[in-house]
Amino acid sequence: MGDEKNGKSKHWMGFDLGGTKMLAVVFDRKFNAKGRARKKTKGADDSTVGTKRIIETMEEALAEAKVSHDDLGGIGIGCPGPLDLNKGIVLESPNLGWRNVELRDTLEKHFHCPVVVANDVDVGTFGEYKFGAGRDARCVVGIFPGTGIGGGCVYEGRLIHGKNRSCMEIGHIQVQVGGGRLCGCGNRGCLETVASRLAISAECAIAAYRGEAPNLLKAAGTDLANMRSGVLADAIKAGDKVVEQIVRQAAKQIGIASASVVNLMAPDVIVLGGGLVEAMEEIFIEEVRKGVDKRAMKSLTKDFKVVAAKLGDDAGVMGGAALAAEAAGG
Amino acid sequence: MGDEKNGKSKHWMGFDLGGTKMLAVVFDRKFNAKGRARKKTKGADDSTVGTKRIIETMEEALAEAKVSHDDLGGIGIGCPGPLDLNKGIVLESPNLGWRNVELRDTLEKHFHCPVVVANDVDVGTFGEYKFGAGRDARCVVGIFPGTGIGGGCVYEGRLIHGKNRSCMEIGHIQVQVGGGRLCGCGNRGCLETVASRLAISAECAIAAYRGEAPNLLKAAGTDLANMRSGVLADAIKAGDKVVEQIVRQAAKQIGIASASVVNLMAPDVIVLGGGLVEAMEEIFIEEVRKGVDKRAMKSLTKDFKVVAAKLGDDAGVMGGAALAAEAAGG
Repeated sequence: MGDEKNGKSKHWMGFDLGGTKMLAVVFDRKFNAKGRARKKTKGADDSTVGTKRIIETMEEALAEAKVSHDDLGGIGIGCPGPLDLNKGIVLESPNLGWRNVELRDTLEKHFHCPVVVANDVDVGTFGEYKFGAGRDARCVVGIFPGTGIGGGCVYEGRLIHGKNRSCMEIGHIQVQVGGGRLCGCGNRGCLETVASRLAISAECAIAAYRGEAPNLLKAAGTDLANMRSGVLADAIKAGDKVVEQIVRQAAKQIGIASASVVNLMAPDVIVLGGGLVEAMEEIFIEEVRKGVDKRAMKSLTKDFKVVAAKLGDDAGVMGGAALAAEAAGG
Repeated sequence: MGDEKNGKSKHWMGFDLGGTKMLAVVFDRKFNAKGRARKKTKGADDSTVGTKRIIETMEEALAEAKVSHDDLGGIGIGCPGPLDLNKGIVLESPNLGWRNVELRDTLEKHFHCPVVVANDVDVGTFGEYKFGAGRDARCVVGIFPGTGIGGGCVYEGRLIHGKNRSCMEIGHIQVQVGGGRLCGCGNRGCLETVASRLAISAECAIAAYRGEAPNLLKAAGTDLANMRSGVLADAIKAGDKVVEQIVRQAAKQIGIASASVVNLMAPDVIVLGGGLVEAMEEIFIEEVRKGVDKRAMKSLTKDFKVVAAKLGDDAGVMGGAALAAEAAGG
């Protein structure tokens, strides 16, 4: 474990490629953040320009940390969208309009260190497992309700994944059988169709339009795009009972899907994260806990916990850095 | 890997403790069966008598194989019912009326070799992974519809389990939301309530009673207990269309639950086993395949297979022997 192995004092970089922003953080070998940089992700950039932008962000973080390429042991990146995990290729990124971008090879050529490209939710779950709310648990399942609903699982220290794809597609567990709203995946009744931020916002916009949520209407009008997590939380605090009911109903559906996850994987802990959960933690923790207690096998819910994520926006970069370190045997 | 390690020429014993029969098989280090013994499991035996019976069966298999206690490297046992995996205790066995039976310790004292006690479905899945239909796959999920519906998963060579319990409770995935028949677990709408042999038999008994399944009525009357897998298969062959519809509908429900399993675990292969599947293989394979193709994420169903188990009744003893060998580092 010597940090001077290969004559290098090892640092690790975590990178989070989000739909709206990208974040690079350089960590020392004890995972203290030494430098960070953030840029907007521009959907209009083609992949060449986009990759350049990623490299620039990484270089800025390295400069702030005063870490040279030689001192960098590896890079771990969390990306949305379908990836080729084995080759480190972004197959498709709807938000960025990218297709078949060889991110790993490009970055390895530039930085001359190993690069791990992984699913963003997996990386965030790994971060919470290593440093956050799921620290050192035997089996951690992360659930991140956002525009979609992502899931990840660290089982006995390793991320569960498919042959060449991430899995734990909790958002596509069916919670409505024989009907329900059409999902982006082509099915009906998936958890995402009733419990994602988009589904919640749509219900809230209806409530606002009907005059049932006056505080929300005042703050956000009836536009879905304005129904951000914080806005919804504020409307609840200001007394819009119907908004609370809508969020609670969505959290309940996540609880139904979580019960299936518990019956299959028997995690020690489910970590709930993302903006919605951060803004309305109590509602989500309470309803998911209730759903699991009601529907999962009793023998699997003893000593089982539902907790909120602790690392916020840093889960991805910390998880990425930790994945890079593990991949390098560091 | 020397078979003469510790001066012993290693053999492994697999043991399958079923609700109606128990089976012991002794294998050499290449997993060729060298001796086997079988006895009825008697529900009336208390656990002391029952444990004696298990030891007798094991001794008979050893005698047939001409293997002494000294030549036995370890024993792996598959048991139904909730177990304490870490301590090797049968916590409760409804069929046998056992409670808190310290099976591992008793057998280790008698045979002076390491004993692994594991869930019967897990052990069967491990057998199919090592020697059968899921051979060497990265991720194998076994689904065994019977009186209940058991599941197991071998992920990158290791059985997935809970902290101290088996998991992969596929039979308790909800396939009917907001209602459905009451399950043994206390919930409603679990897969078991609509797709176990019990559920299928109940539907078939109704059909027989109504005169819609004349061949079945002739062969089995209207008694649930007579509606064995082979009887149902024969009725279908003889032309009882309604029996086929009932079985197909049950298989379809297993397909719905399987789609959730695929979305979460992205297995390379689902192995379907047990008496129902053996008797009506085509129906189960076809409907589960269709269910997964229709409902799971397309990116996770490429190169994915649904196959029938290959080892029949020997899956448990072979899996048990292999688990014992792995636990001993053999």
